[in-house]
Amino acid sequence: MKKLAVAVAGLGMIGRETVRLLRKRRAELRERLGAELTLVAVADRQVGREARALSLPGRVVRYADPVAMARSADADLFVELLGGFDAPRRFALEALGRGRSVVTANKRLLAYAWPQLARAARASGASLAFEGSVAGGIPVLRALELSFSGDRVLSLDGILNGTTNYILTRCEEGLTAAAALREAQEKGFAEKDSALDLSGRDAAQKLSVLAGLVTGGWLKPDSFPVAGIESVESRDVAYARQRLGKAVRLVARLRFAGSAAAPLVEAGVSATLVPLDHPLAAARRQYNALLVRTASAGDLMFYGQGAGAGPTASAVLADLFVTARDLLGGLPAPRPGPRPLQLAPPGSAVSGFYLRLEVIDLPGALARIAGALGREGVSIASIHQDLAAGARAVPVMITTHPAPRGRFELARRRILGLAAVSKRHCAMRILG
Amino acid sequence: MKKLAVAVAGLGMIGRETVRLLRKRRAELRERLGAELTLVAVADRQVGREARALSLPGRVVRYADPVAMARSADADLFVELLGGFDAPRRFALEALGRGRSVVTANKRLLAYAWPQLARAARASGASLAFEGSVAGGIPVLRALELSFSGDRVLSLDGILNGTTNYILTRCEEGLTAAAALREAQEKGFAEKDSALDLSGRDAAQKLSVLAGLVTGGWLKPDSFPVAGIESVESRDVAYARQRLGKAVRLVARLRFAGSAAAPLVEAGVSATLVPLDHPLAAARRQYNALLVRTASAGDLMFYGQGAGAGPTASAVLADLFVTARDLLGGLPAPRPGPRPLQLAPPGSAVSGFYLRLEVIDLPGALARIAGALGREGVSIASIHQDLAAGARAVPVMITTHPAPRGRFELARRRILGLAAVSKRHCAMRILG
Repeated sequence: MKKLAVAVAGLGMIGRETVRLLRKRRAELRERLGAELTLVAVADRQVGREARALSLPGRVVRYADPVAMARSADADLFVELLGGFDAPRRFALEALGRGRSVVTANKRLLAYAWPQLARAARASGASLAFEGSVAGGIPVLRALELSFSGDRVLSLDGILNGTTNYILTRCEEGLTAAAALREAQEKGFAEKDSALDLSGRDAAQKLSVLAGLVTGGWLKPDSFPVAGIESVESRDVAYARQRLGKAVRLVARLRFAGSAAAPLVEAGVSATLVPLDHPLAAARRQYNALLVRTASAGDLMFYGQGAGAGPTASAVLADLFVTARDLLGGLPAPRPGPRPLQLAPPGSAVSGFYLRLEVIDLPGALARIAGALGREGVSIASIHQDLAAGARAVPVMITTHPAPRGRFELARRRILGLAAVSKRHCAMRILG
Repeated sequence: MKKLAVAVAGLGMIGRETVRLLRKRRAELRERLGAELTLVAVADRQVGREARALSLPGRVVRYADPVAMARSADADLFVELLGGFDAPRRFALEALGRGRSVVTANKRLLAYAWPQLARAARASGASLAFEGSVAGGIPVLRALELSFSGDRVLSLDGILNGTTNYILTRCEEGLTAAAALREAQEKGFAEKDSALDLSGRDAAQKLSVLAGLVTGGWLKPDSFPVAGIESVESRDVAYARQRLGKAVRLVARLRFAGSAAAPLVEAGVSATLVPLDHPLAAARRQYNALLVRTASAGDLMFYGQGAGAGPTASAVLADLFVTARDLLGGLPAPRPGPRPLQLAPPGSAVSGFYLRLEVIDLPGALARIAGALGREGVSIASIHQDLAAGARAVPVMITTHPAPRGRFELARRRILGLAAVSKRHCAMRILG
């Protein structure tokens, strides 16, 4: 029976679970592949301790330095589960440079080093698989890659960050945003440092990976508008639900225009009001979801746990399986392109908007707020004042009819410059 | 550049759309595959007319008899989109017998001829792909097959029939079941003869295909309990929604027990009460959904349009792509097993139940109904009487605590034997 040798870098939670699954599912993998996947090397800063804890046999070579393993280990498939950016980048480039295939679950690596990785893979003909980097165990990349081979993706709308989704859906259940974040941290759904999640940057990196998969090109993670949920309060969530019939979700979106050869991409991440019966509203707690609009197959949605050692390791195993299959068959590896994607002007995206303001001098201020929106051609769909007795600042909730984002942003800036309006506010897109 | 020859049998809506997509996506397919997929033959009862309508070039060989094409056409890949059962079966067996790969979207063929097809494919080493046969354009089979290579499927719960889902969700919106069916027929979401859909047998055939894919074995479509939505009325849907906080869906389910070598399967199709915030409740109108519980990746859901020429042709193209890739690489075809699956006793499945009865002599009858349930150890969770003034028969809605299906069925039969209870009734499973 043919054998393929596997080397795993990083024996943290996901790395250990990958090694465990590789052993546990050995018989099924052998049967489905017609070949044996054998672990030959591992790398970890504490490789001795971790290898002992996993009771790895003596023939598995131990490395303390992952880059040294990528340079010299006699493996066909290199798995990168190190975390961070610089070591993973050097590891992947080293292995790809030797013509060896790389499997990674590192979205930051892919989002920021895409051109380098693409060039290295192209030059040596090696393949790069990354199912685990977006939406954990949901096989979205595989589905996008294979099953749309005869179709065309028109747009993607994704809930790609489990932490923010957990917070937003717990707010629906009556918690404050701060309490929901604490709970998410206690349950292990949120990092101690939650800035990357709350700011939308984590979702933006994943969006970059998805765009690369669909178009082959590079969507630079800092090149499109990204807003998080920091300013969303539980009263916004409650108002959206009770008065507007909408759920608040952090939605990362891509729209594809232009041609296959010269794709034009509209990209963005923002807190978004979604109709309650919209499929994305059904993604609750730590779940992720991806809604894909295609030319032939219509709307598709994928839903599942976006993170965690089990789901991610399961995605890594699937990548190993598919890459091994291609290697055994001598098939050409998918070829990512190093070129940046052409972006549509960020102000041109059209949608309705929600704006919660804190207004101090109500009677005079409302006319000025309406005037600022009107001057940009943004028309008001609804306006609501929460007249709590004795409060100094009155919350005002405004929704607008669809308008170009650029126009709304100009009006927002003007409104926040008014003396009667507090800087503290919340702005969200409205979908559908 | 390498070439793979394709022959398409059946130029109905899906066949024509497949031929159209094959031409339209030619450049993308060539680039992703490193080879050319060329249409070399078509078969249709009215092949002359259809070939002209598609402006097929003269070099594409025309057959009026699909089986003759399967026997003699010089193609690598044979696509079966004929409809019906006998001609598709002979077509597929003929092509597989010659060692040629077959792509089909015919669930009935797969559900009933599985052992024959599996034996023919095994004997010649050819492969059989059938993504389009279940859930149309949703790449569920591909995801199950590839991405769970390192995982284990524990259960599947699917909304696999668009017609019944359309009717049930329109009932939620206030229509009667009869009016919803008429509307579905007018919109083309339901056949004129809707018996196959309404009875749950269409969903049962799809369940058989899914079970085969997960286990490799044959789940005979008439070997497990199947109930449809014929007895569900709009008042059941309204009561479930308003009083129980549940949506009514036709759910096809599989639970896997036993070992990989000797799987034990619990299978069933029935109208089911699903919590309103359950992901399956988000599948509305003609949409399909499949909830997959896995050992490592947790809960996953796939959602999309279950039928229609576009979605199904898109699935056929994906199958062609994947099969072509395997052929080019000389990879082993997946091997379905001809053996029937071992089924768990159908009465052993445990769930809560909903029972709507029409009761004539209320005071005396209620005690007897409760007694019949009690005698089988099925305990009542809630009971509600709709006391419409002057009505002869009073509707009584009962929900039970979880109980084995066999016990509930015995009690139901006994209740329907009571003189004070009409035969007209509705029974449903309760999920979660």
